Amino acid sequence: MGLNIKPLADRVLIEPVEAETKTASGIIIPDNAKEKPQKGKVVAVGAGTKKNPITVKVGETVLYGKYAGTELKLEGKDYLIMRESDVLAII
Amino acid sequence: MGLNIKPLADRVLIEPVEAETKTASGIIIPDNAKEKPQKGKVVAVGAGTKKNPITVKVGETVLYGKYAGTELKLEGKDYLIMRESDVLAII
Amino acid sequence: MGLNIKPLADRVLIEPVEAETKTASGIIIPDNAKEKPQKGKVVAVGAGTKKNPITVKVGETVLYGKYAGTELKLEGKDYLIMRESDVLAII
Amino acid sequence: MGLNIKPLADRVLIEPVEAETKTASGIIIPDNAKEKPQKGKVVAVGAGTKKNPITVKVGETVLYGKYAGTELKLEGKDYLIMRESDVLAII
Amino acid sequence: MGLNIKPLADRVLIEPVEAETKTASGIIIPDNAKEKPQKGKVVAVGAGTKKNPITVKVGETVLYGKYAGTELKLEGKDYLIMRESDVLAII
Amino acid sequence: MGLNIKPLADRVLIEPVEAETKTASGIIIPDNAKEKPQKGKVVAVGAGTKKNPITVKVGETVLYGKYAGTELKLEGKDYLIMRESDVLAII
Amino acid sequence: MGLNIKPLADRVLIEPVEAETKTASGIIIPDNAKEKPQKGKVVAVGAGTKKNPITVKVGETVLYGKYAGTELKLEGKDYLIMRESDVLAII
Repeated sequence: MGLNIKPLADRVLIEPVEAETKTASGIIIPDNAKEKPQKGKVVAVGAGTKKNPITVKVGETVLYGKYAGTELKLEGKDYLIMRESDVLAII
Repeated sequence: MGLNIKPLADRVLIEPVEAETKTASGIIIPDNAKEKPQKGKVVAVGAGTKKNPITVKVGETVLYGKYAGTELKLEGKDYLIMRESDVLAII
Repeated sequence: MGLNIKPLADRVLIEPVEAETKTASGIIIPDNAKEKPQKGKVVAVGAGTKKNPITVKVGETVLYGKYAGTELKLEGKDYLIMRESDVLAII
Repeated sequence: MGLNIKPLADRVLIEPVEAETKTASGIIIPDNAKEKPQKGKVVAVGAGTKKNPITVKVGETVLYGKYAGTELKLEGKDYLIMRESDVLAII
Repeated sequence: MGLNIKPLADRVLIEPVEAETKTASGIIIPDNAKEKPQKGKVVAVGAGTKKNPITVKVGETVLYGKYAGTELKLEGKDYLIMRESDVLAII
Repeated sequence: MGLNIKPLADRVLIEPVEAETKTASGIIIPDNAKEKPQKGKVVAVGAGTKKNPITVKVGETVLYGKYAGTELKLEGKDYLIMRESDVLAII
Repeated sequence: MGLNIKPLADRVLIEPVEAETKTASGIIIPDNAKEKPQKGKVVAVGAGTKKNPITVKVGETVLYGKYAGTELKLEGKDYLIMRESDVLAII
């Protein structure tokens, strides 16, 4: 990924993955839950802060809350930028 | 449990247990309380943080508030991911 | 008390005591106060946290706010689980 | 005072003193102020916490906000239990 | 001042000074500002806390916000008790 | 400036400067922005606190939010007293 | 940039860049997102604080939330002043 962007502090940049009915690893994101977590791929991470060091790595797939982050478009694709504390889990 | 998921920070992944009228250990979850705690099994835990280390262990059965956590589906089963501070007790 | 439950962190498990007009030790819980404290017996305590160590002991009788804690039923009896900071006094 | 009660943490137990038009020491509590402080006698104090050590002593007379604390009845008398931070002054 | 009162923690006791059109030192408190500071004389101070040490001294004249503090009457005179953080300036 | 006033803690006293269409240094304060910063001259500063040391100096011209501070009148002139954290920049 | 302005504490001064449909580096800021990040150039930075040191540098291009900061006009041009924590990323 040659994206020319550096998230600030404890933020991470995520490329959302379209929800499928069944993924290769067998994980299904529910379709009618009140607040469904979303799945995405980490494409850039900030330097972290003393209080909030970054623990996810570029390339990892993560789950995050439906309303987490701010949308932005880079080279024609949609991304989300959010604080790592909005990331729920690595899958 | 071969689940391929790692909760972040002080989060735990819980597999809810259906409320029974009387469990083997004799514990009954009330049916009409205003905010009934729910019962579930810990299936994955985060690494914890300096401020909030993880104390529950995978395999333990826990009680948690009715509205705690975010629902997600893994390999066809429903789970909840929540911060350990939303877990009330180990039973 | 052979209850198989361990409150998490700074939580305590309390068995409520029915309010009497006059207790053996002469303490009366008022009946018409706007927010009456309730009386109960500590039956289990958490391990405490560095910031909030547990100071009440199993067996002690305590007063707590009327709306404190979460109700749960163990072996047919009603209990309350709450943070120790919701306990007002030991009597 | 042989009261069998131990306030928890940074709480103090106060026996309210009826507002008089003029006290022995000449202090008058105003009658029509929007939020009049109340006067009472400290009858029991908690152990304090590291962050909030107890500084008032049993026997001292204090002023506190009109809506401070929780009412309770001990051996037929009315008391208030409150955090020491709700106590305004020693008189 | 022989007042028998000791403010608690970081509180100060202030004797309000009637607003004049022009004071001896030439200071005028505006009459129609939306939230006019008030002027008063410090008559007693608390011991301070580690986090909020007391810096004003008894006898100093201070400005404070219009709605700061709690009113009380001592030996027939009106006073205000407030946290030192509600004091704006010494004049 | 012989003003006899000492702001408390991390507060600063500011003499507002009338907004001009173009200042000597070429700085123009916008006229129709939703929340225009205002310009003023620092005439007195507090001693600062450990957490919030004072960094502006008497004589410096600063920008501050439109609704920052409390108005007061000293020797016939209008001033504002505010926490230094309400000051946006030195110009 | 010979601008005569020094942001205070952890604030940065940003010169907004007009959103284009496609920038030289291929980055497109979405046009209909609910809360679009904006792009701008850092023209001045504060000294930072112990808790919030400044990490962006003058000359860098940054993304920030649509409603971040306070508008001001310097030598006829529009700028924004905001805390560095409102800056999302360096691009």
